[in-house]
Amino acid sequence: MVKKQLSSVGVRQVRLDDPFWSPVQKLMMDVVIPYQKQILGDEIPGAEKSHAIENFRIAAGEQQGEFYGMVFQDSDVAKWLEAVAYALAIRPDEKLEREADELIALVGRAQEADGYLNTYFTVKEPDHKWQDLQECHELYCDGHMLEAAVAFYEATGKTELFDIMKKNADLICSRFGKGKLRGFPGHQEVEIALLRLYQATGEKKYLETAQYFLEERGTEPNYFKEECESRDWTYFGMNPDDRLYAQNHAPVKEQSEAVGHAVRAAYMYTAMAHLAAETEDEALYDACRRLWRNIVDRRMYVTGGIGATVHGESFAPVDYELPNDLVYAETCASVAMAFFARRMLEIEPKGEYADILEKELFNGILSGMQLDGKRFFYVNPLEVVPGVSGKLPEYKHVLPERPGWYACACCPPNVARLVTSLGTYAWSENAESVYAHTYLGGKAEFKNGAVISCVSGYPWNGDVRFTMEADKSFTFGLHIPGWCRSWTLRVNGETVAPEPHDGYILLARDWKQGDTVSLSLELLPRRLYANANVRADAGCVALARGPVVYCFEEADNGPQLASLRVSRASAIGVETAGGVLDGMPVLTVQGERMTSSEALYSDEPPKAEPAALKAVPYFAWGNRGAGGMRVWMHESL
Amino acid sequence: MVKKQLSSVGVRQVRLDDPFWSPVQKLMMDVVIPYQKQILGDEIPGAEKSHAIENFRIAAGEQQGEFYGMVFQDSDVAKWLEAVAYALAIRPDEKLEREADELIALVGRAQEADGYLNTYFTVKEPDHKWQDLQECHELYCDGHMLEAAVAFYEATGKTELFDIMKKNADLICSRFGKGKLRGFPGHQEVEIALLRLYQATGEKKYLETAQYFLEERGTEPNYFKEECESRDWTYFGMNPDDRLYAQNHAPVKEQSEAVGHAVRAAYMYTAMAHLAAETEDEALYDACRRLWRNIVDRRMYVTGGIGATVHGESFAPVDYELPNDLVYAETCASVAMAFFARRMLEIEPKGEYADILEKELFNGILSGMQLDGKRFFYVNPLEVVPGVSGKLPEYKHVLPERPGWYACACCPPNVARLVTSLGTYAWSENAESVYAHTYLGGKAEFKNGAVISCVSGYPWNGDVRFTMEADKSFTFGLHIPGWCRSWTLRVNGETVAPEPHDGYILLARDWKQGDTVSLSLELLPRRLYANANVRADAGCVALARGPVVYCFEEADNGPQLASLRVSRASAIGVETAGGVLDGMPVLTVQGERMTSSEALYSDEPPKAEPAALKAVPYFAWGNRGAGGMRVWMHESL
Repeated sequence: MVKKQLSSVGVRQVRLDDPFWSPVQKLMMDVVIPYQKQILGDEIPGAEKSHAIENFRIAAGEQQGEFYGMVFQDSDVAKWLEAVAYALAIRPDEKLEREADELIALVGRAQEADGYLNTYFTVKEPDHKWQDLQECHELYCDGHMLEAAVAFYEATGKTELFDIMKKNADLICSRFGKGKLRGFPGHQEVEIALLRLYQATGEKKYLETAQYFLEERGTEPNYFKEECESRDWTYFGMNPDDRLYAQNHAPVKEQSEAVGHAVRAAYMYTAMAHLAAETEDEALYDACRRLWRNIVDRRMYVTGGIGATVHGESFAPVDYELPNDLVYAETCASVAMAFFARRMLEIEPKGEYADILEKELFNGILSGMQLDGKRFFYVNPLEVVPGVSGKLPEYKHVLPERPGWYACACCPPNVARLVTSLGTYAWSENAESVYAHTYLGGKAEFKNGAVISCVSGYPWNGDVRFTMEADKSFTFGLHIPGWCRSWTLRVNGETVAPEPHDGYILLARDWKQGDTVSLSLELLPRRLYANANVRADAGCVALARGPVVYCFEEADNGPQLASLRVSRASAIGVETAGGVLDGMPVLTVQGERMTSSEALYSDEPPKAEPAALKAVPYFAWGNRGAGGMRVWMHESL
Repeated sequence: MVKKQLSSVGVRQVRLDDPFWSPVQKLMMDVVIPYQKQILGDEIPGAEKSHAIENFRIAAGEQQGEFYGMVFQDSDVAKWLEAVAYALAIRPDEKLEREADELIALVGRAQEADGYLNTYFTVKEPDHKWQDLQECHELYCDGHMLEAAVAFYEATGKTELFDIMKKNADLICSRFGKGKLRGFPGHQEVEIALLRLYQATGEKKYLETAQYFLEERGTEPNYFKEECESRDWTYFGMNPDDRLYAQNHAPVKEQSEAVGHAVRAAYMYTAMAHLAAETEDEALYDACRRLWRNIVDRRMYVTGGIGATVHGESFAPVDYELPNDLVYAETCASVAMAFFARRMLEIEPKGEYADILEKELFNGILSGMQLDGKRFFYVNPLEVVPGVSGKLPEYKHVLPERPGWYACACCPPNVARLVTSLGTYAWSENAESVYAHTYLGGKAEFKNGAVISCVSGYPWNGDVRFTMEADKSFTFGLHIPGWCRSWTLRVNGETVAPEPHDGYILLARDWKQGDTVSLSLELLPRRLYANANVRADAGCVALARGPVVYCFEEADNGPQLASLRVSRASAIGVETAGGVLDGMPVLTVQGERMTSSEALYSDEPPKAEPAALKAVPYFAWGNRGAGGMRVWMHESL
């Protein structure tokens, strides 16, 4: 029987003090959040115009003007507010809080009397509300603002945005559902938000509306076609018969393959898993498991990236089709996959869910951001070819360097809201247990009474030391990552060796304040190989150390990375980087550079010349100027 | 000093009797040409509508109706007529000749009084003639019809089409040139045709106009922009500032990199080489050599395919960027490359030009046609992936099976006109010499008095025997292909061993009727390797035997061809195929199938299981149903 075994911890329960993540959080608070605010307010000369705050001012009747931007421009404000909520829980900031409060008040003034909130429709198309759910992102924007509202409430206790968005959610719930109007969003998101609102309030109707949106999707007749045929205007003209794109091809409980727009898909799977946990719906959880398996076993890059093609920002609808150079692997999709992993963990604390959570955090999500926090990738390639990536038509989307800001600004605030709430992903709990899925230094206070502090060198070293800060009898679950071949565990200095259960060591004890648990994970560099069905990676090897996948950059290895081979016989060394990668472990390995005559084709095979090769953490690629990059390297035996 | 050393032989000088090519020519005459006529006349129910002949009827005022089809629809008729001309030289066919004569008469009636000929403009846009040379293909269609006219004249001695098109060419020459109107075609072709007309007539103005079109191209100001700005209508709206696409980015003598639409490019290079030969223009020949080197050393597939990207059907503007799966490699572009090679051979009989000519004939051109002559490829991939090729958006153009006919029907008639005139590519001559560039069985009579018959087993075996059919003192040049490591030569039964000169053995003799020359080329299967800079082929090997490149099909080797490896240590066997490939040598080689656990990524490398692999001639791929195909196979050492 499916059952929600664990709950996430709240953002106020965790306080990070982590040598790896704390600086990233600080970057978010010092650089990313202030910068994003300036962008939203059009305060940065030369930057891509956002107009997002101005849209709210116009909708509130406080400014004259036209709506500008994407139909989902409001969501930029929402995601920023959500990140601010978490940031305020991490570190009080009067100025930031005042800015947020002012913006929230503006959002309230832009809301219509019945609770409706969408500046595009209020300003530009007041007669066309709710008529194009497929394309027009009203429910998507509402969902993001609702998430921000719940976050603000939980992080700060303040209710202004919560009240605004509860009114909006009530409008949605009164409008859509069985016996009410038919409909569901083109871009899933509001389902996640409504379930969070249900968690925060306990009001069943929010869960029911989320459930309605999920269960109505993919049913006959095709709702998107119905609404398309019943309106006499066109926003963009997407084909409602392209049902795969928005996962509208089958009822969600019957879906087995991850298809279509990867962010929409993973948001939907997140909500499905959350709903399955709340409703104990076995069939729904089965669908989640099938979809999880399809992604993780057949449709995910080794970096955690999902969505192999720019066309529809979609999963390739073919197993094992994972091109490293044409790749999409949107940062937001990796964020969404972390959401999905967390919800799966709440149903069953299985190490493989936590493995994917870590894979996303340390690779596909973090790669989206420049080390200085000022530039962002949407697309996270596994191969960059100078002169090709970002240049040739097929590769226009694969940028070799992070750009500053996009007109469609979904990824940067998505990274910001995840990183600022990171503690809530690291831990879960129930009445009798506490689980650590990844190892964040700091302190966590649990609703069940446990209080644990942690000193962690993760992911650069595998030494993690927990200290109990309160007396409490509970089972402490510690994730043994799938990549870890050897570990030692000491409780109060004495070695213990329990057998892991589904990827977790379970220590059931009557813990006393001052008790210590020291986990030492062996963190050897290792080689990774793709399934033999992945044609893009045939004959290739990738390197990793702990949860961190590595890549080879031109900056270290010279040009023409495809002509290099990593020797299988070579030991992999670990060195400490300088420069902008200061302090990161880099991997060294022996290999060969293949050279050939000038001829394009020849009877003579290329010749191998010894080459000392160096790999850097994948998430840190592209921080040293433009140049080639490869995760998968040809291997010599 | 550049100088035209050799001339092509005429189509009536050569009579094929060749076990490999005669059946292909027969297929052209029995199947392809009659089928194409039915297509052009819309006589095949269910086939893509052509309307090409109907357009001429409407233009002639003999039918009511609208123009239908591409703006270059007339060229389908022209290429068909050119192929018919050659076919009539091969084998008299009263019915076919009558059909052609009727069609030629119709073309004459569709021509306007001043010589203008283009059914699109005559019927649909009579006020817009000559105003959009960039897009509207008037000169392209004229060029093809002019080539047909010269072909008809040379092949049959009949002058009807020749007179029609000479009048058209006179109009072109009177209109365009220095001191006349500025202009040059968006799609090169008329330059080739005008030079052929010059050859046929000796009238200098045709050469001068071809020269004008070539030399005006790429000059400032941008002519396509000028004409665009001076007209108040739009045909399609191509960007005149995309100067690479139509090789309009620099004066042709200054060009060094093969860029843009590959067919346009190679037609232009063909005309440049022809013009350089006629004018002895060293700078122009230097440009041809640079462009040749760039293609052959950096931008050509091992099958002879050129044009790596569907976007603009273009060369990738990056050296060594030759994706096997995304490839374009249009059949027409290989035909055009054969044209270019022939013109280069006329300037300098170098074996490397003949090597490319053979590469195109036995691979990239012939692969365009189904073995039964009924279906055709435009795109000639080097890797086909089931579920991906022809399906995913990036791969829509890469069809896994030859379709029947296209709305844009350029390739099938291009193959037809090449194959029916094949003898003119195999031989060239001058007053003192005869050169055999490839080995076609049959008989050739040369303008210099030499008459040679040939019995050839090429390309399946390397035994070629020539017999002199007339007394004549001349130098006999025999191409020793670049792939051939060992050969023996006997003259009248006695072994001789002259050193080849630039890829040719030169036998200067006072030849007597009955003298024999027996050449035996060692035809061992061999491995090919790509330059280490070709990222798509890293770690891979291809197989070939003689001029024929091989490929591995799913029909012989099972699914997931990327998971197979060819062992470098294995001998390559030769067997004879049955079934639809009846009689062709197929290659057998030992290798491995890599297998792995279900996991998508693992610390465990895939395991190798021995596998017996089989390769078939590349040109014959796709004749046994849909399935995977690879030319480049991973190699194990």
